[in-house]
Amino acid sequence: MVSPLNPRMAATFPPPVMEARRWLEGVEFPKDRPLINVSQAAPMEPPPEALRQAIADAALRETAAHLYGPVLGLPDLREELAAQWSVAYGGQIAARNVAITQGCNQAFCAVMATIAGDGDEVILPTPWYFNHKMWLDMQGIRTVPLATGDSLVPEVQRTSLLITERTRAIVLVTPNNPAGVEYPPETISGFMALCRERGIALILDETYRDFHSGTGAPHDLFADPDWDDTLIHLYSFSKAYRLTGHRVGAMVAHEDRLAEVEKFLDTVAICANQLGQRAALWGMRNLGQWLAGERAEILDRRAAIEAGFPALEGWRLLGAGAYFAYAAHPWPIPSDELARRLVAEAGVLLLPGTMFLPEADTSARQQLRIAFANIDRQGIGRLFDRLAGFRP
Amino acid sequence: MVSPLNPRMAATFPPPVMEARRWLEGVEFPKDRPLINVSQAAPMEPPPEALRQAIADAALRETAAHLYGPVLGLPDLREELAAQWSVAYGGQIAARNVAITQGCNQAFCAVMATIAGDGDEVILPTPWYFNHKMWLDMQGIRTVPLATGDSLVPEVQRTSLLITERTRAIVLVTPNNPAGVEYPPETISGFMALCRERGIALILDETYRDFHSGTGAPHDLFADPDWDDTLIHLYSFSKAYRLTGHRVGAMVAHEDRLAEVEKFLDTVAICANQLGQRAALWGMRNLGQWLAGERAEILDRRAAIEAGFPALEGWRLLGAGAYFAYAAHPWPIPSDELARRLVAEAGVLLLPGTMFLPEADTSARQQLRIAFANIDRQGIGRLFDRLAGFRP
Repeated sequence: MVSPLNPRMAATFPPPVMEARRWLEGVEFPKDRPLINVSQAAPMEPPPEALRQAIADAALRETAAHLYGPVLGLPDLREELAAQWSVAYGGQIAARNVAITQGCNQAFCAVMATIAGDGDEVILPTPWYFNHKMWLDMQGIRTVPLATGDSLVPEVQRTSLLITERTRAIVLVTPNNPAGVEYPPETISGFMALCRERGIALILDETYRDFHSGTGAPHDLFADPDWDDTLIHLYSFSKAYRLTGHRVGAMVAHEDRLAEVEKFLDTVAICANQLGQRAALWGMRNLGQWLAGERAEILDRRAAIEAGFPALEGWRLLGAGAYFAYAAHPWPIPSDELARRLVAEAGVLLLPGTMFLPEADTSARQQLRIAFANIDRQGIGRLFDRLAGFRP
Repeated sequence: MVSPLNPRMAATFPPPVMEARRWLEGVEFPKDRPLINVSQAAPMEPPPEALRQAIADAALRETAAHLYGPVLGLPDLREELAAQWSVAYGGQIAARNVAITQGCNQAFCAVMATIAGDGDEVILPTPWYFNHKMWLDMQGIRTVPLATGDSLVPEVQRTSLLITERTRAIVLVTPNNPAGVEYPPETISGFMALCRERGIALILDETYRDFHSGTGAPHDLFADPDWDDTLIHLYSFSKAYRLTGHRVGAMVAHEDRLAEVEKFLDTVAICANQLGQRAALWGMRNLGQWLAGERAEILDRRAAIEAGFPALEGWRLLGAGAYFAYAAHPWPIPSDELARRLVAEAGVLLLPGTMFLPEADTSARQQLRIAFANIDRQGIGRLFDRLAGFRP
C-alpha cells in the first residue's frame, strides 16, 4: 500500500477507459475477425492534411508556438470562439468570457474548483460522465445522482426537489455522453431558470455540439444578456477537428469567474499547449465545410444504429446521438461481466452501465454504451452481427 | 461578485506572473532602452531547428501524434527517462515508475492530490515556489513554512520540529526556484532519512537539474533500492529543450502511487499532448550535446551575476543558480512597491519577495528574484547599470 495516501483519492474509482483497455490484455483476435472497439469516443483518423500542415508550419516558423502564453489562452482563439458562439447561439459572448484549457475535462475541473469544495453538493443526471464523478469524488464534493428513467432526459421538476443549501451546481451534458440523447431546448432553459432562481451554477457541457442533429441553436441561453450570472459553457476541440491528442478545450463564463479559473489553470497547467491552440484556431477558421461533412457522416452512422437495433432480439436502444448509443441488453448478466465476456466471445469492446451509474442503481446491470462514431456503416453492420450471434 | 464561489479558491492568491505582467500595462519603454524582463524563468528562443523539424515531421506523418495516448504517458518517453535517470543518479528506475504530465506544475498537483487533502499539512521551505502554495491553498492543505535564513538552505533538524501527525510531505526544490541555491547532497539525504523515519513523502522537484553547477549526481537518493517508499521526483522538459509552450513534465514515483496519480491525470488531463511528448523524447535522445552547451551558457550568466553584484551598493546576493538570483535590496521600500517602481523608473521587471514568502515574514520586504537566465552577459551588464542608477 502506498503511504501517505489521501483517503479521497483512494476512494475515487480508477479510470474506466484504462480498465477497459486492460480487458484486452492476453486476448487474441483472429486476423479475419479483429476487435471492434467502441469503448472510447475518439476519432481514429488524423486531422485533415491541411490542418496537419498548418501545425507543422507553426512548429517550424513561429517562435511563440514553443513558448509560454497567457494562462487563459491564445487571444486570437478566445476571440474566434467568442465570435462563432455569438452567431451560433444568437447572443453576446466576448473574448473576455472565454478561457482555453488543456482539454475539456480540465475545463470542468477548473471551473468546478471555483464553485464547489469539501462538503458541497453537485447534481449530475444519470448515467453520468465518469470523469465528472471522479473529480467530485477526489474533491470531497457529494454527487447527487438525478435519475432520468428510460427517456434519459432529466426533469426540471424532479431536480428542484434535490436542491439543498449545500447544492452549488447542476451539470448537463448535451448531446449526452454516455446516453447519446439531445436535450430539448425547453429542458435546457428550464434548468437555466431553476439554477438562476436557486442561485446555483448551470454547467452545460456541449463537447458534442458539432454533431447535434438539429441545424439551429440547440438552446437559447446565450440570447439572455444576463446569461453569465448562471451559465458556464464547456466545449472541446478534440472531436470536431480530430485533435484528441492535442488536449485543447474551452469554457465560456463570466469574466469574474474566469479570474478565479485563472488561479487554477496557472497552478495546474500554466497554459494550454501553444501548437494545439493554433491547431484549434486554424480548424475554426478553415474547417467549417469539412466539419459539416463529418457531422453528416456521424448522423448517417447514427441512422444505421437506429435502423439496425430493432432486429437485435431483446435489446432496447435507449438513446442515440452524437458519438454514442446507449442500450439495454436482454440477459440476466451484470453489464460489467457481460462487457468483459463480449471482448473474448464476440470481439467487441464497449463500456458497461456500471461505469456510468451509482452502485445502487440496478439499471446499471442492463445498460451499455456503444461509441459508434468510431466505426462506419459496414463496421456497424458487423457489430450487429456479432451482438446477434452472441449466446450467453 | 461571482457566485457560487468556493471560499478556498477565493482565498487563493492570483497568479503572480500574470499580476506582474499587468504592471507593464500603460508603461512605455523608449526604443533605446527597452524593458529588461527578468520576471519569469522562460527561454525566449525557440527550440533548435532540428527539434522543430522533428515536431513538424511527427505532425505531418504520425497519426498517433494527434490521438489520445495512455494516461501515464508515451511508453517510449517513460522508458527513455527511466534509462537516463538510472544512469544519472546511479539507481534503478523503471518505466513503470515514470508518469508524463502536462507540465511539471501538473506533476506537483497530481501527486500532491494523492498524498494530502483537507486539513493535512505540507512543509515548504521559504521562499517557496508560489504555484506550490496556490495548490495547497485551493485544496485546503495547510502550508507549514520552513524558514531557511540567509543561507536559503533548509535545515533537517529544524524541520523535524515542524512535523505533526497531520504532516504528509516535505517539498524540496533544487536547484531552487526562487532562491537559486543548490542544496548540498547531505541536506537532501538528510531530508530523505527524516521523511522515511516519520512516514511522510519527500517531493524533490528538480526542474532545473540540467543547469546544476555540479557534474556528478546531485544526490544519491535513487541509489537506495527502496527509494520508492518515500521519494517522489519531479522534472520538466520545458527548460532543457525550450519547450515551455508544449507543457510536458514528468514524475518518478512508486508504481502504486502512479496508479493513484493516474486517476487524477485521467480526470484533469486525459493525457499530456502527444506532439509535446514526442518533442521531449526527441530532445532526450538527440540534444544531449546541445544541452551541455546551454548549461555552460547559463553557468556563464550566473558567473556574470556573481561577479557584478558586489559592485551594486547596498545590495546582497543571497543565492544564485539555475535560472535565478535571489537578492536583498538596500532601501526602506517594500519589495512589491519597489518592483512596481522598477518597471517605470528603471525599465526592469522582476518579482518581489512578497510573492514567495508568507505575509508575516518581514524578509519579504527586502528580497527580490531575478530570472537572469533570460538575458546574456551584455543584458546582465545593462541590468546592473539600471539597478545601480536607480534612486528611490
